[in-house]
Amino acid sequence: MTMKPYPILIGADDFHKARKALSQLDAPRTLFVVTQKNIKGLHGHTLIKALKGYDIQWILIPDGEKYKTLKTCESLLQKLVKLGAHRKSWLVAFGGGVVGDITGFVASIYMRGINCVQIPTTLLAQVDSSVGGKTGVDFGGGKNLVGSFHQPKAVFIQTQFLKTLPHRQYLSGLAEVIKMASLDSPVFFKLLEKNIEAILLREPAILQKIIALCVRFKTRIVTKDEKEKNLRAILNFGHTLGHAIEGITRYQKFTHGEAVSMGMSFATHLAEGLDLTTDSPQDKIRMLLNHIGLPTAWPRFDLQLYQKFLKTDKKRAGQTIQFILLEKIGKPRRIDLKLEDVLPWL
Amino acid sequence: MTMKPYPILIGADDFHKARKALSQLDAPRTLFVVTQKNIKGLHGHTLIKALKGYDIQWILIPDGEKYKTLKTCESLLQKLVKLGAHRKSWLVAFGGGVVGDITGFVASIYMRGINCVQIPTTLLAQVDSSVGGKTGVDFGGGKNLVGSFHQPKAVFIQTQFLKTLPHRQYLSGLAEVIKMASLDSPVFFKLLEKNIEAILLREPAILQKIIALCVRFKTRIVTKDEKEKNLRAILNFGHTLGHAIEGITRYQKFTHGEAVSMGMSFATHLAEGLDLTTDSPQDKIRMLLNHIGLPTAWPRFDLQLYQKFLKTDKKRAGQTIQFILLEKIGKPRRIDLKLEDVLPWL
Repeated sequence: MTMKPYPILIGADDFHKARKALSQLDAPRTLFVVTQKNIKGLHGHTLIKALKGYDIQWILIPDGEKYKTLKTCESLLQKLVKLGAHRKSWLVAFGGGVVGDITGFVASIYMRGINCVQIPTTLLAQVDSSVGGKTGVDFGGGKNLVGSFHQPKAVFIQTQFLKTLPHRQYLSGLAEVIKMASLDSPVFFKLLEKNIEAILLREPAILQKIIALCVRFKTRIVTKDEKEKNLRAILNFGHTLGHAIEGITRYQKFTHGEAVSMGMSFATHLAEGLDLTTDSPQDKIRMLLNHIGLPTAWPRFDLQLYQKFLKTDKKRAGQTIQFILLEKIGKPRRIDLKLEDVLPWL
Repeated sequence: MTMKPYPILIGADDFHKARKALSQLDAPRTLFVVTQKNIKGLHGHTLIKALKGYDIQWILIPDGEKYKTLKTCESLLQKLVKLGAHRKSWLVAFGGGVVGDITGFVASIYMRGINCVQIPTTLLAQVDSSVGGKTGVDFGGGKNLVGSFHQPKAVFIQTQFLKTLPHRQYLSGLAEVIKMASLDSPVFFKLLEKNIEAILLREPAILQKIIALCVRFKTRIVTKDEKEKNLRAILNFGHTLGHAIEGITRYQKFTHGEAVSMGMSFATHLAEGLDLTTDSPQDKIRMLLNHIGLPTAWPRFDLQLYQKFLKTDKKRAGQTIQFILLEKIGKPRRIDLKLEDVLPWL
């Protein structure tokens, strides 16, 4: 699968490269910026200044994962028709994962696909969801059950937007950072351990560095495997149980990062239990998660509940459940397990 | 743009090659067949026999272009969730263009894309819509305004299904056949002229021949230009005005082929008027259309109405309207015209 390369610009507080990229990419003068009221209030003026010379058409969508639905997409599509968007029009997703997922999906189906620029404003979106081209909405009880693969035209990442992020949401993003470092290499993981205080203080220099490492790691995986036939699956480290926990609690109780944190903790427990680790990376990961205040003990739900939700995992094919375990840091391994072999470790 | 090749099998009354192809493609045992009540009644038993050994899950969608909506897609998605379709599941579109478009679109967004086999049962779908990967539904007054590019896994074309097709629908398909012959070559066009009586009698031998020529022509165009940047646009011969006529009459009065027939007739008129033809292909096309009973005189609507609907054409980019005109048969030419240069010829 070949993928068109697209610029991913990472900065602290500076949009001039982004403006230059837009002009090089021949962006139209009118940009349809999809965002939420809260984000527009906090950062709208920054974007207006940043996109000087462009005519911005604001489109607001409601805030919250519970609005990541086909219904929200439909109302967004209606607004695009009403505003006269055509096949050369560009959308700009300005917000967190929900904004990015919905806007990317709508861009992929409006007139059979128009361009979309991602300007992620949360750490989770900056390191993960804005890169890779996965779009989707929740449907019929399933997370991202309806969606598409649609690569963005460009991604502009600015750490300045992270300043206003609530602490819990910031930690949620850090869970994905720790996930990627664990999958990538001991070097990346050590960088996190060493700089964890500066990271918690959201210092722009270290943030740009780790975001760049995450983006580089993710694009490397995704370029090799756009549509998740194989390699891309390793990005699901911590997500098999994480998704089940989110499903059981109806996405209400935990942030995505908290669920993934517990999922990673379980995956390391499982790897130890099945004797699949050659090293002892597991303690390090749990210690780092604990240190920054992410949960590592998964909830003691009824096993039948876990069973039900593990069975509906989207990645499931046939009768087994796919887990990503770590032999050591930087050495992930995909393993298909029968449900009865997983439950005893829960 | 690279496209995965997929088998397109054309036969009269024989599914054994299709069964073999399914097995070579590793189709799962359960197939989700999307169709309409009427088609299931007429040809369901044929399909059951044809797909012997497979477990068929029938999913019915309502009949008619007016149900080519996001709402129908949503209820189809719901049924898939309920029936337990997963990312390795396959859909089968068994019907005309509406079934093919909806099923293809849903396949492209269910779990970010699952496989879809097209088994078209109308001439229009057999020669045109089942091949090329365009999917879509009508939205906000626009035809196929929401959709995607999603190549089928295989296309099985059987002329046996055409026997029960109402004459007017059959003619509608013939309009697209004549369109493709006009775009392709004098040889193809002459084949139609020479065999028009056998074609009207729906003789399987000649039908297979012309379907094969249409499919070969269309795949050649589409392979070179999957996403309609350029070359693929020639397939819109007759469609610029055709779509306007369909829009003005709310898709109620004319079949798609009738609208395209009038559109082609207008395009030849326009080519003559603008002195863009080196030959006189125009009479031949109109004569053939007339001979089989397709309309060539476009309706005398108010020019303001035409103007309004030509302006909302999906292919429009900027202030001009794109027309495909023929220099001669087999020599199409794309031309962007200002509205005021088109209206006098209407």
